[in-house]
Amino acid sequence: MNLLLLSPDQISDNCALIHGRQLEHLLAVQRAEVGDKVRLGLVNGLMGEGLIRELDDQRITLDITLDIQPPTPLPLTVVLALPRPKMLRRTLQTIAAMGVKKIYLINSSRVEKSFWQSPFLKPEALEEQLILGLEQARDTVMPEIFLRKLFKPFVEDELGEIVAGSKALVAHPIAAAACPVDSQSPITLAIGPEGGFIPYEVEKLIEVGFESVHLGPRILRVENAVPALISRLFPS
Amino acid sequence: MNLLLLSPDQISDNCALIHGRQLEHLLAVQRAEVGDKVRLGLVNGLMGEGLIRELDDQRITLDITLDIQPPTPLPLTVVLALPRPKMLRRTLQTIAAMGVKKIYLINSSRVEKSFWQSPFLKPEALEEQLILGLEQARDTVMPEIFLRKLFKPFVEDELGEIVAGSKALVAHPIAAAACPVDSQSPITLAIGPEGGFIPYEVEKLIEVGFESVHLGPRILRVENAVPALISRLFPS
Repeated sequence: MNLLLLSPDQISDNCALIHGRQLEHLLAVQRAEVGDKVRLGLVNGLMGEGLIRELDDQRITLDITLDIQPPTPLPLTVVLALPRPKMLRRTLQTIAAMGVKKIYLINSSRVEKSFWQSPFLKPEALEEQLILGLEQARDTVMPEIFLRKLFKPFVEDELGEIVAGSKALVAHPIAAAACPVDSQSPITLAIGPEGGFIPYEVEKLIEVGFESVHLGPRILRVENAVPALISRLFPS
Repeated sequence: MNLLLLSPDQISDNCALIHGRQLEHLLAVQRAEVGDKVRLGLVNGLMGEGLIRELDDQRITLDITLDIQPPTPLPLTVVLALPRPKMLRRTLQTIAAMGVKKIYLINSSRVEKSFWQSPFLKPEALEEQLILGLEQARDTVMPEIFLRKLFKPFVEDELGEIVAGSKALVAHPIAAAACPVDSQSPITLAIGPEGGFIPYEVEKLIEVGFESVHLGPRILRVENAVPALISRLFPS
């Protein structure tokens, strides 16, 4: 955790109250003490610093100053075939940590039906992973996640509007073109499941304006393809 | 697993024998049957295809053809502060999957001493992770791993020779320069532990020719920094 991400209800009169997971982390991992300074930020707001005023095993009270803008969001929408639950959590943390603010989790032929039953898809579980990603990266702006359980209606009825005004790329191991470096335009990036989108799905994506791109001769897992693609598209 | 990586002792007379982990994977995940074709490769050799001739729950016999060169290795040496054991395994898989062939695992002030006691540092455990990475990526060339438990003698006595003929970069969140894109020269890339190299260590690296570079305003975990850095340096 490189930043303590606070919700508005934790703050009053320039003073923040810490409990639960964040308290445990400050005590056990950072071994916080009265007088220590802690980096923090308000969800969807400014970042700054907190000075620990009081501390016990129930809660920590901090005097806070919020005066730093969070990093600029990436002009990138990620459309991701739902990964298996364990990988979903890591991948959401990664996507949040890298500055993506809009994520569509979609179905695909190679997504196992059972993945859609995962408790990790509950709103509070998704939010938890996004918060962990923001706290890792030092950012405050919460990404939005949209779940789309049906591939065809999503692509036919909704995706056209999502990609409008952006360059739309689908990562595909057997694409002819390499993924571009340092994109100067907003991007909509589609990433398939392990095993890739099936040809029908790639065709449907191409119909709404996607161009298929590869990442080189080696096949990467989703958890590595995500940072590899984003870092190449937006080398800030 | 996108490629079955075979050791020489599994092969005789254009015929390969599969057992153990690879057998289990073929049967349980890929649901292999007689007559199926499987991509495979010989450790440090060619890649090609195998045709399943016989199959039972003890072993699979394949007729093999090896006629494809593995992907070109990256001209990149990674010098990595030893991550915690769980992350080490994932990170080694990633490094192997991305085409790195030389890895130094080194000590740093923020590496916990206990990490060096991990059973995952045994040669056969390291090799297992590298094989998983190569099988994911479709590559056959085994990376070499070197363990260096003492930072100062490694940097002072050995690192100068390692970086000779390459551009040496150390990833550091507060560096002035951004990590370059599309390097045209061989690279030696140093990556610190969670929390980063301490200033003394960065100074020592700079003394032997390293330049410190950042990955943008967000702080990434080692497991994401590795694919992000490599993909940016070598966008093949």
